[in-house]
Amino acid sequence: MSKLREEIIYHGRILDLARETHQMPNKKESGFEIVQHPGGAAALPVLPDGRLLLIRQFRPAAQDYIYEIPAGRLEPGEDAAMCVARELEEEVGYQPQHLESLGYVYSSVGFCTEKIYLFIASDLQQTQTALEPDEFIEPHIVTLDKALEMISTGVIDDAKTQIALLRYAINHRKV
Amino acid sequence: MSKLREEIIYHGRILDLARETHQMPNKKESGFEIVQHPGGAAALPVLPDGRLLLIRQFRPAAQDYIYEIPAGRLEPGEDAAMCVARELEEEVGYQPQHLESLGYVYSSVGFCTEKIYLFIASDLQQTQTALEPDEFIEPHIVTLDKALEMISTGVIDDAKTQIALLRYAINHRKV
Repeated sequence: MSKLREEIIYHGRILDLARETHQMPNKKESGFEIVQHPGGAAALPVLPDGRLLLIRQFRPAAQDYIYEIPAGRLEPGEDAAMCVARELEEEVGYQPQHLESLGYVYSSVGFCTEKIYLFIASDLQQTQTALEPDEFIEPHIVTLDKALEMISTGVIDDAKTQIALLRYAINHRKV
Repeated sequence: MSKLREEIIYHGRILDLARETHQMPNKKESGFEIVQHPGGAAALPVLPDGRLLLIRQFRPAAQDYIYEIPAGRLEPGEDAAMCVARELEEEVGYQPQHLESLGYVYSSVGFCTEKIYLFIASDLQQTQTALEPDEFIEPHIVTLDKALEMISTGVIDDAKTQIALLRYAINHRKV
C-alpha cells in the first residue's frame, strides 16, 4: 500500500486539504479526502504536590471553553519534546525538567494525518507565560481523582487530555 | 463567544473546510480554519468470554494498518447508538444487545468540530459483516491486559481506541 499521488485542494495556514490516491490492499486505486496536518505535542503537567495542571481555553471548533492539557503544533522538523517544553512555558509558565514519553496517537485517522505526541511533564520550574493574541487560557489545578471524575462525567471531553490522564492513572496506580 | 460568520472553502464528501470568524473572549474578531465534520461513533466490543474485539484496517491517512475499535461517521441527525450498532454489524458482524455510553470526545478540537461518541458494546449476537468496497478489515481478539500492553508499547496508536480501552480498564477494575 502506498500513496500514488495527491492533489492539494487547499493550502492553509495550519493544515492542507488534499485529494490523495492510494493503492489499496486489493491493489486497486482509491481516492480519499485527507487533512494533512504537521502534528502536535501535548503534556500533562504534574505539580510537586502531585496535583495536575489543566488549562481551560476557548476553542472556536467547539464554540465553548474546553479543559485540555497544554499542547502545540509541531514546526517542520521540530522534536516533539522541544515543542511541548516550549508550549508548557508559553501557555502555563513552567519549564519541565523531566518529560516521560507516552508515544503518539492519531487523533482522527479516518481522514487526518495528525499525530499527537504525548508526555507526562514533572519537576516543573516556574517561569513566565507568553500567550499569543488569540489564546485565552486559564490554569485549572485538580487532583487525579477529580480529573478522572471530570472524564466520567463528560466535563473533560478533549481526546488527548483524556488519554494523558487515563494513562497517567493506569501507569501510576499499577492497574 | 459565538461564531459570527463562515465561508466554506471546500465542500467535501466527508468533511467541509471553512474559514470561520469568531468573537473571542476579549470581544475582538478572529479568523480560524476549521474542519467541519459530522462526527462519529465507536464502540469497544466485549465478547462473552471477556476478551475484546479490535479491528485492523488499512488507513490512507497513516499509510499503514491501524488497530482500532469499530467506528463510523454519523449521518445527519443520526443517533450515535444507532450508528455504532450499524457499524458493529457491518464491520465485525455483531449486533450489540447492550451499549454503555462513555460520552463523547473532541478528536482534535484545535481545528476540527468532530465529536466521537464512545460506547462499550456487550451481549453480542453474531450476524453478517457487510464491508464497503474500500474497507479492508481484519478482526483481532485480545485480552484487556494484552490491549493495555499494546497501548503502552505504541502498537495501538489510535486515539479513540486508546480512550475506550483505558476507560473500560478503569471502570471495570475499580481504579
